[in-house]
Amino acid sequence: MRPLPVDNMASRISQPALLRVLQGETIDPPPVWLMRQAGRYLPEYRALRAKSDGFLEFCYTPAAAAEATLQPIRRFGFDGAILFSDILVVADGLGAKVEFREGEGPVLEPLTPQSLKLLKLGRVRPHLAPVYETVKRVRDALEPQRALIGFAGAPWTLACYMCEGAASRDFAAPKAWMWSDPSSFGALINLLVGATVEHLSAQVEAGADCVQLFDSWAGILPDAEFRKYVIAPTARITKALKQRHAGLRIIGFPRGAGPMIDAYARESGVDGVGLDYTMPLETGRAVQQRLPVQGNLDPILLLAGGEAMTARIGEIRKAFSGMPHIFNLGHGILPATPPEHVAALVAAVRTLP
Amino acid sequence: MRPLPVDNMASRISQPALLRVLQGETIDPPPVWLMRQAGRYLPEYRALRAKSDGFLEFCYTPAAAAEATLQPIRRFGFDGAILFSDILVVADGLGAKVEFREGEGPVLEPLTPQSLKLLKLGRVRPHLAPVYETVKRVRDALEPQRALIGFAGAPWTLACYMCEGAASRDFAAPKAWMWSDPSSFGALINLLVGATVEHLSAQVEAGADCVQLFDSWAGILPDAEFRKYVIAPTARITKALKQRHAGLRIIGFPRGAGPMIDAYARESGVDGVGLDYTMPLETGRAVQQRLPVQGNLDPILLLAGGEAMTARIGEIRKAFSGMPHIFNLGHGILPATPPEHVAALVAAVRTLP
Repeated sequence: MRPLPVDNMASRISQPALLRVLQGETIDPPPVWLMRQAGRYLPEYRALRAKSDGFLEFCYTPAAAAEATLQPIRRFGFDGAILFSDILVVADGLGAKVEFREGEGPVLEPLTPQSLKLLKLGRVRPHLAPVYETVKRVRDALEPQRALIGFAGAPWTLACYMCEGAASRDFAAPKAWMWSDPSSFGALINLLVGATVEHLSAQVEAGADCVQLFDSWAGILPDAEFRKYVIAPTARITKALKQRHAGLRIIGFPRGAGPMIDAYARESGVDGVGLDYTMPLETGRAVQQRLPVQGNLDPILLLAGGEAMTARIGEIRKAFSGMPHIFNLGHGILPATPPEHVAALVAAVRTLP
Repeated sequence: MRPLPVDNMASRISQPALLRVLQGETIDPPPVWLMRQAGRYLPEYRALRAKSDGFLEFCYTPAAAAEATLQPIRRFGFDGAILFSDILVVADGLGAKVEFREGEGPVLEPLTPQSLKLLKLGRVRPHLAPVYETVKRVRDALEPQRALIGFAGAPWTLACYMCEGAASRDFAAPKAWMWSDPSSFGALINLLVGATVEHLSAQVEAGADCVQLFDSWAGILPDAEFRKYVIAPTARITKALKQRHAGLRIIGFPRGAGPMIDAYARESGVDGVGLDYTMPLETGRAVQQRLPVQGNLDPILLLAGGEAMTARIGEIRKAFSGMPHIFNLGHGILPATPPEHVAALVAAVRTLP
């Protein structure tokens, strides 16, 4: 844990609790936010979304995206607001063909070594300007004690969707490419590292207080490739971002990392580690000896609600108490989740002993 | 590692190499078989399958299922033949409605606490008699140095399919049930423990030399539930089987176990542990200090073939050398896999230094 210089203390105390935890402070009860806290499980989101045409258009309309970002803050008083957007806006920004079909999820034209050459790093910032405008509007509207969390998909996860063209169980396309033509696959990863740095940097410039890298498909790689395509690109991104933005705190969420979580915590350069719901509390506690942790309630326990949920919240609180912890889920909220269960979660996190 | 009594030595040497490894012996090069080695990637399987109507009917036709089991042995000379069948025959045996739709995978009528009462343990053995006849025919036809591996799905994984009704990313149905009504969910797990014992026991009686428990969805559970629904039911099954069949060796394959693999190896009572392709070699090697291991090549490396595959085979061989190891994939063969890559894999396992 990096100790903060004493002369930062005054400014630190006025900062959002979520940031202070990422700086190594222990806060009890822990700050809380939930992955996918803005979205389909909220009736006010569905009403807002019904007024717009496509999902990407919605993400690129600052008034709508800012409103979606703020809805769960008003309803539940989370300690952090996460920008309403999608990890695939970076693919769209680079010039890949991305479509969101209702009920089907994202569909992309699968990338090849040939079509890779058509993607343009310089297109990302101008194309995604509405996203940065959204960040600005949210930060202006958000109370100072709440953190605004920017985010991006990590290069490996973006590559998964871009090569496969859709969500998949096996992601055979990116893996076959990675193994059969490591040189052009490395070029794709390099491009995505650059694009991710630009996208996150622009969010920080617009007012994001910290950022999270979602590596949703980190867990499908063997150990050698986990190091090469998850840890190494993340380390390049965190280094570049910190050079541009001194003091920026970065949360990494390598979903499914399993036993590789220790190497990730040591080598990726992130300031906090998101733990998925399969991460044993004991393993998470070991990670916490090194870095603040965030997580890790199973979103299906939130869907189920009741005593089982409350009991597990207590176990997670207890396991991670006395060290820096941000309460969160171990994966995003499911659309069928009753909003009253979310209210019960927040209350339990804030009132359990 | 359990040492064998010296007076077993003579009988042991005449046993299949795969069994000897499961008894704690180190064999170099290691015996090799592959999960889903019989199936759609083989043209001779597709030809055989085209002659039958439904997939379940195919599984219940001993001549066809025995032929499918033996096809990859003839072509590649694997050290083990795994019964051609499906983990869902146990659900069908219990009386659940199971359908296999072309290109869609299994579809079941989702189980509820009400429909659970209609399932009958006593129906499993009579309904699955053709499966045991298949085992007998394969054992009769198989050379003595090759092991015949029986198998079943583990209770948690069967419950996943039976509650959800199909494959799923989240398996919200079994998890919501497990958390909201642990008592009736426990009754389902109990029933599946009993059915699995009957099904595996009947396979051993028919001639299976060892058995494998596939817990394909072990990796979606938090730690407490992994102990309760993966480790504990497996321990009950291994104990019951060993009481009935002295000396029986059981391989457990808790896919996605991640950091829980150590507890699984210690507490489940299995004799060998299947390692999925995400298991770091270092973690696998730690498991191997306790039990023989099997695995863990990524099936997409087999799909890709070439130098990347050969290099990784060498790394796996090296990591697990000097201790009991069975070479295998870390998940089943994908249908698009070229059979010549499988031949190259077997050659590499048997000839690499």
